[in-house]
Amino acid sequence: MNPSVIALLHGPDQPGIVAKVATWIHQCGGNVLHADQHLDRQGNVFFQRVEWEVSASREPKQESDDFVSFVRDELDMRVRIGLSTDRPKVAVMVSKADHCFHDLVLRVRAGEWNADFVGILSNHDDLQSVSENYGLPFYHLPMTEGKKQDVEGKQITWLREQGVELVILARYMQVLSPSFLKQVGCPVINIHHSFLPSFAGARPYHQAYQRGVKLIGATAHYVTEDLDEGPIIEQDVARVSHRHGPKDLIEKGRDLEKLVLSTAVRRHLQNRVLDYQNKTVVFD
Amino acid sequence: MNPSVIALLHGPDQPGIVAKVATWIHQCGGNVLHADQHLDRQGNVFFQRVEWEVSASREPKQESDDFVSFVRDELDMRVRIGLSTDRPKVAVMVSKADHCFHDLVLRVRAGEWNADFVGILSNHDDLQSVSENYGLPFYHLPMTEGKKQDVEGKQITWLREQGVELVILARYMQVLSPSFLKQVGCPVINIHHSFLPSFAGARPYHQAYQRGVKLIGATAHYVTEDLDEGPIIEQDVARVSHRHGPKDLIEKGRDLEKLVLSTAVRRHLQNRVLDYQNKTVVFD
Amino acid sequence: MNPSVIALLHGPDQPGIVAKVATWIHQCGGNVLHADQHLDRQGNVFFQRVEWEVSASREPKQESDDFVSFVRDELDMRVRIGLSTDRPKVAVMVSKADHCFHDLVLRVRAGEWNADFVGILSNHDDLQSVSENYGLPFYHLPMTEGKKQDVEGKQITWLREQGVELVILARYMQVLSPSFLKQVGCPVINIHHSFLPSFAGARPYHQAYQRGVKLIGATAHYVTEDLDEGPIIEQDVARVSHRHGPKDLIEKGRDLEKLVLSTAVRRHLQNRVLDYQNKTVVFD
Amino acid sequence: MNPSVIALLHGPDQPGIVAKVATWIHQCGGNVLHADQHLDRQGNVFFQRVEWEVSASREPKQESDDFVSFVRDELDMRVRIGLSTDRPKVAVMVSKADHCFHDLVLRVRAGEWNADFVGILSNHDDLQSVSENYGLPFYHLPMTEGKKQDVEGKQITWLREQGVELVILARYMQVLSPSFLKQVGCPVINIHHSFLPSFAGARPYHQAYQRGVKLIGATAHYVTEDLDEGPIIEQDVARVSHRHGPKDLIEKGRDLEKLVLSTAVRRHLQNRVLDYQNKTVVFD
Repeated sequence: MNPSVIALLHGPDQPGIVAKVATWIHQCGGNVLHADQHLDRQGNVFFQRVEWEVSASREPKQESDDFVSFVRDELDMRVRIGLSTDRPKVAVMVSKADHCFHDLVLRVRAGEWNADFVGILSNHDDLQSVSENYGLPFYHLPMTEGKKQDVEGKQITWLREQGVELVILARYMQVLSPSFLKQVGCPVINIHHSFLPSFAGARPYHQAYQRGVKLIGATAHYVTEDLDEGPIIEQDVARVSHRHGPKDLIEKGRDLEKLVLSTAVRRHLQNRVLDYQNKTVVFD
Repeated sequence: MNPSVIALLHGPDQPGIVAKVATWIHQCGGNVLHADQHLDRQGNVFFQRVEWEVSASREPKQESDDFVSFVRDELDMRVRIGLSTDRPKVAVMVSKADHCFHDLVLRVRAGEWNADFVGILSNHDDLQSVSENYGLPFYHLPMTEGKKQDVEGKQITWLREQGVELVILARYMQVLSPSFLKQVGCPVINIHHSFLPSFAGARPYHQAYQRGVKLIGATAHYVTEDLDEGPIIEQDVARVSHRHGPKDLIEKGRDLEKLVLSTAVRRHLQNRVLDYQNKTVVFD
Repeated sequence: MNPSVIALLHGPDQPGIVAKVATWIHQCGGNVLHADQHLDRQGNVFFQRVEWEVSASREPKQESDDFVSFVRDELDMRVRIGLSTDRPKVAVMVSKADHCFHDLVLRVRAGEWNADFVGILSNHDDLQSVSENYGLPFYHLPMTEGKKQDVEGKQITWLREQGVELVILARYMQVLSPSFLKQVGCPVINIHHSFLPSFAGARPYHQAYQRGVKLIGATAHYVTEDLDEGPIIEQDVARVSHRHGPKDLIEKGRDLEKLVLSTAVRRHLQNRVLDYQNKTVVFD
Repeated sequence: MNPSVIALLHGPDQPGIVAKVATWIHQCGGNVLHADQHLDRQGNVFFQRVEWEVSASREPKQESDDFVSFVRDELDMRVRIGLSTDRPKVAVMVSKADHCFHDLVLRVRAGEWNADFVGILSNHDDLQSVSENYGLPFYHLPMTEGKKQDVEGKQITWLREQGVELVILARYMQVLSPSFLKQVGCPVINIHHSFLPSFAGARPYHQAYQRGVKLIGATAHYVTEDLDEGPIIEQDVARVSHRHGPKDLIEKGRDLEKLVLSTAVRRHLQNRVLDYQNKTVVFD
């Protein structure tokens, strides 16, 4: 099987988009494997994810470049593109908790995802030796008062040097500054340990215990300048009862956080997620 | 099988409660069918639900009265009591939506619950004919501006005359006043169409759509003076996607509301719910 | 908004299907609202559901007829077609249990589905008066030994006279003969009260209790000659424990059966289900 | 807080068991932390899990020995006992798949469970180096034709030398012989990669794909001589669609297997599971 191109398009709806896209691919000798679309009738915005096998006579990188030009010039829409052979470079930021860290690394090692983990950034050194055991460079930058700007500068420099295309906050306990987010140059996915918008902010399991909810949740979202307010990619919940104290919720929550974060990362890496007006369109 | 007594106890923990309760029952010739307990270590409060079959030689009502005296006098705890043969009187308050209404009534008719529905209160007359088709008295009191105190007074009078022991708000779209809640003299269970504390207040499905959540929820709770802040009895969620507009969420939510409200009512009627410090202990 | 056409296509994969279909629609002035497709790589079979708004200048029925001709003649594929304005005629077959019956009828009355229920067929008369209260003709044909062929003949005659386009078995406790299935001339959806293929056959809740499973399930499927072996449309499960005896499983299962059957019927009525080689493709 | 004793009792129901147990504990100065019971009315069998804090003046091991004598002599029931300070010795048997293996080991290292993993047994050497990286002895015994009896003999010898109290089959792809099970002298928990009793035997994900189910499952159970027929401890499911081929089911199933197996092991280690007549009573 030849490599395939995956394109995510969106823009104002107009007659014949589907036909034009499909015809373009067909004329290049491509074979559509999947195509899914969504029309937001409130905003009249058209979204599409289309994946096609490139003809053996065409060079995949060239085909994807040509497609981008076609979409921009003839459809006047925005497009993001990937190849089935891509292996994006990913960095993981952690603090002390290690459950999401292990989960992500083991998935990459098991071959679940086409991605390369290039290293771990942390404000603590707790996970240094396990990172290095996995063969992953560990970059420790302690975050002391007044040093945030300096530390973030070094993080940005490192991320750029590595050519990182996705940053995952795997229970990283620092807020990223607007300046960091402007400079990072790639999407940042965070896992929040509550069912947002419930219990935004600190110590969500303690808040959940206090309110006496019967389900706890976790939420993976793209990070924006508004803390815990970015576009939600995935959420899930688990049942709890009066028997569960805050410590039990924290332990139960770990499994939830692992599953929700890994589901969000998988969808992102498979080019299934479009964010638009602070929400996501997820093509499953 | 003889009738059984179900007791819900709570109070400060003290040595030997379990032994004293079990011994009392044994000495009366009772046979414990279920016993479940919970110790809230933070507040050092002991909770128990115990159900026992009454000896054929004892009168069940007398046994339950004696047990109440025993718990109050010798254990200095609070107790609520029921008999397996009880059929509490229930009133349902509705506005225009009928899905929870039909669901509740059909469950009683199917014999799922030991309860008698004595009538329907409403601020609209939309459900009058279906109520009467079910053989249920329908009491229509339009709620016009400035008449709330008057209408609530009539509702309270009617509820008392009927001897109502549980009020269910089945998508009743009026806020009950503190005065109503003080006078009603029995628990009131409400269904809120969101996963509280997310999206309290009005139009929760529109709020959920706006935020782009990936799960919608419903919450059944005891009504207190603080709107949408009462002790939660049950919650559940359903998965949604970018394809679902507000209208779809409302339709999908109906099934959720029916299930969550009926689960909460079932647990209440089976004497499985203790509320304490704005949370519930639910003995499943 | 104009009426839309919904088409379900399938057949051997070939280059350019997506482009040809989209171009045909575009040339008729149609506007694609949804399009979803699936390629079964093992069998090299292509499946598509496409829905488009018909141009105001075209007559929807004519457009759908023309599309059928186009697909058959130019793509050599099989196609099933519906209009957004269709209201298919549905018959429900019941025995004594009424939970699915009420659930289905109330959904139609609430306007959840575009369908007309034309009547109820039953081998018992238990649900006669509730059917008639809903304004639904009730056709009672007792099934006594040796009369099956005769009864089924009358059922077929009635279904044809009514022009029924979908039969729902809402806990109908008789096996339909191969002869009935050959003659009925429309799909038949059944709800089986277990998580098939576990516990096929009779008394599945008793079988589940005996095996000590921790989840019970329900399965909605198209009926074929092989009992409980037809293509599965939808399944779901609910958690149970050692505390639940067979009677509890039956009661808990009722909610599951209602939800699973109604989900399957909704999908079928929205033309989202293709069956192929004893499995279904469900376009959500 | 002093150590606590956890006792699991079962036997024929008789008047006053609950009172006798509670009184015995109270007289020893113990404080009941949890007590849960179940009465199987069909078999008239009483089950109880009771946990109590031992008086500071008593030695926990002595208290538990005395309790065992009391239950046997005065109640004539069977009892299993544990201390909150116990750290049972656990062995894990694996073949080539590593997802459950990593999951279990990381949970122990994170302090989720009170248990000591004493080593890994395998018929392949694939997981040797990762085991040793975790500091876990790895005992590799290749299983070639005709050597089963010999290999199992060595496994039994090793398990006994280590004093193993629980064996976990973490996707161990060999059937244990009746002789092994007779000699192992401790419970064996297995994870089966289907929703039993559906798809027992080999290649369950391929069977599930073939049948077109809409949910896949996993089942953790105690191993008995009847393959895949032992008492079920935990089950769970995940939603799949026509888009998922056998390979996708296998990948999706990995998360399910990890969760279901770890839940079962946690419950077992917390002395929450009683098996009786090929079913389990799980006190949550």
